Amino acid sequence: MQRLRGKGLNFSFTPMDKKPLILVTNDDGVSAPGIRFLAEIAARYGEVYVVAPDKPQSGMGHAITINSTIRLNKSNYHPAAEAEYNCSGTPVDCVKMAVNKLLPRLPDLVLSGINHGSNSSINVIYSGTMSAAIEGALESAASIGFSLCDYGIDADFEPTRQFVEQIIASCLENKMPKGVCLNVNFPKLKADEIKGIKVCRQAKANWVEEFEERHDPYGRPYYWLTGKFVNFEPESTDTDEWALKHGYVSVVPIQHDLTAHSQLQFFKDTLA
Amino acid sequence: MQRLRGKGLNFSFTPMDKKPLILVTNDDGVSAPGIRFLAEIAARYGEVYVVAPDKPQSGMGHAITINSTIRLNKSNYHPAAEAEYNCSGTPVDCVKMAVNKLLPRLPDLVLSGINHGSNSSINVIYSGTMSAAIEGALESAASIGFSLCDYGIDADFEPTRQFVEQIIASCLENKMPKGVCLNVNFPKLKADEIKGIKVCRQAKANWVEEFEERHDPYGRPYYWLTGKFVNFEPESTDTDEWALKHGYVSVVPIQHDLTAHSQLQFFKDTLA
Repeated sequence: MQRLRGKGLNFSFTPMDKKPLILVTNDDGVSAPGIRFLAEIAARYGEVYVVAPDKPQSGMGHAITINSTIRLNKSNYHPAAEAEYNCSGTPVDCVKMAVNKLLPRLPDLVLSGINHGSNSSINVIYSGTMSAAIEGALESAASIGFSLCDYGIDADFEPTRQFVEQIIASCLENKMPKGVCLNVNFPKLKADEIKGIKVCRQAKANWVEEFEERHDPYGRPYYWLTGKFVNFEPESTDTDEWALKHGYVSVVPIQHDLTAHSQLQFFKDTLA
Repeated sequence: MQRLRGKGLNFSFTPMDKKPLILVTNDDGVSAPGIRFLAEIAARYGEVYVVAPDKPQSGMGHAITINSTIRLNKSNYHPAAEAEYNCSGTPVDCVKMAVNKLLPRLPDLVLSGINHGSNSSINVIYSGTMSAAIEGALESAASIGFSLCDYGIDADFEPTRQFVEQIIASCLENKMPKGVCLNVNFPKLKADEIKGIKVCRQAKANWVEEFEERHDPYGRPYYWLTGKFVNFEPESTDTDEWALKHGYVSVVPIQHDLTAHSQLQFFKDTLA
């Protein structure tokens, strides 16, 4: 039976003489190549704790585990980490568990990823990777989600290294606005083909869904969700989709107030 | 084996001589009292199709099923419905499946709920009920999520009736802005105690989490997520939390662009 550290001194900040405390998580699972790459880089900037799902949790969005229990176990995929746990819950559960139960204090930085696959545009709301980063921001920690536009298990993360380093360093040096996290996506390109970083907004886009119908050996139908991504504004040059298509790393600052402020008056006029 | 209707004429709108087509879903499961109450009201305004989870899916946020298959089965909890399916997937899967596979055309209205429990403020991002409504808006349908601030299975939904009717009627009559849905929450009050409707914004709030540690019969630890809701701005009178606390029905228009537009310049200055 493992021993947990107990609830630490949350919401206290790092004294200047301490190394930054960095929580690393993801949605592809604790052993995925993307999180190994990220944790190894993170260890150059601070004391790394890995708390990540024990199995793939892609597409889990901001799901939390409230109808069943959560398990935690130690694992050893990350030699550079101070401590490492895998968790039976969702990516958001991992962040909540780390911040409220495992870490000695509020992390200076929450890093999520590197995801195997894009989380640009509307994908942000389905993404476990990004929901973990949003949860970090909700906990008042500086948070970044990283994703590479390559779903392959053998994806080459090496071209992202210099940008991951640059963004981590910048977020540690410059006090990030509270409650905001970054959605960073990398194009599937070689290092010398990437043109640089573009800070941009989430493109208006959506999936045109299809459900592939199959039949089990007993003749009963079942379905696989498939679909085609459609960018509704391919001409706009200030979006993440444009940046990625044109060889840039896209960086979108993300917040969690879903209020459609510009529509308040419409509903005041028609409803109240 | 059931027969599905096949992919219908999506994205065409209702001719004026047809009754509105209304999709009803939720996250508490197809047989929950809240969705029965909602479907019965909805049937007075149009042709109702129920596609809802086959089991409770609270806290599933915007999760979708991509690592496993989805099953659909007919059920009979809603006598007023034209057709009714329960789905093994998440609330968002239910909406995708309904719109892309089951319904004869794009619904005129997507109704989600009535949820057993609050989805006000930050709860919106964890809520399967609200994610189904957001997904409806993403599919370009007018969408509303309803929640009652009472978690009990025997909650009294009757006091919400006149407001549910008023809001449905208004959203059918007044063309709702595309991509926007409504997050409607009802206080736990008697009908004559509810003061009316307030259109408002999402309050700044969060959960202070705790994990209750227990041990299984074999001595191994497991955890239950618990927590305490904290409103960070109890004095603000334009929020959903204020409205609910003061006896009003809260109505927050919700959108899905997570870009922190006001922070773009900060990151352009510090990163790019």
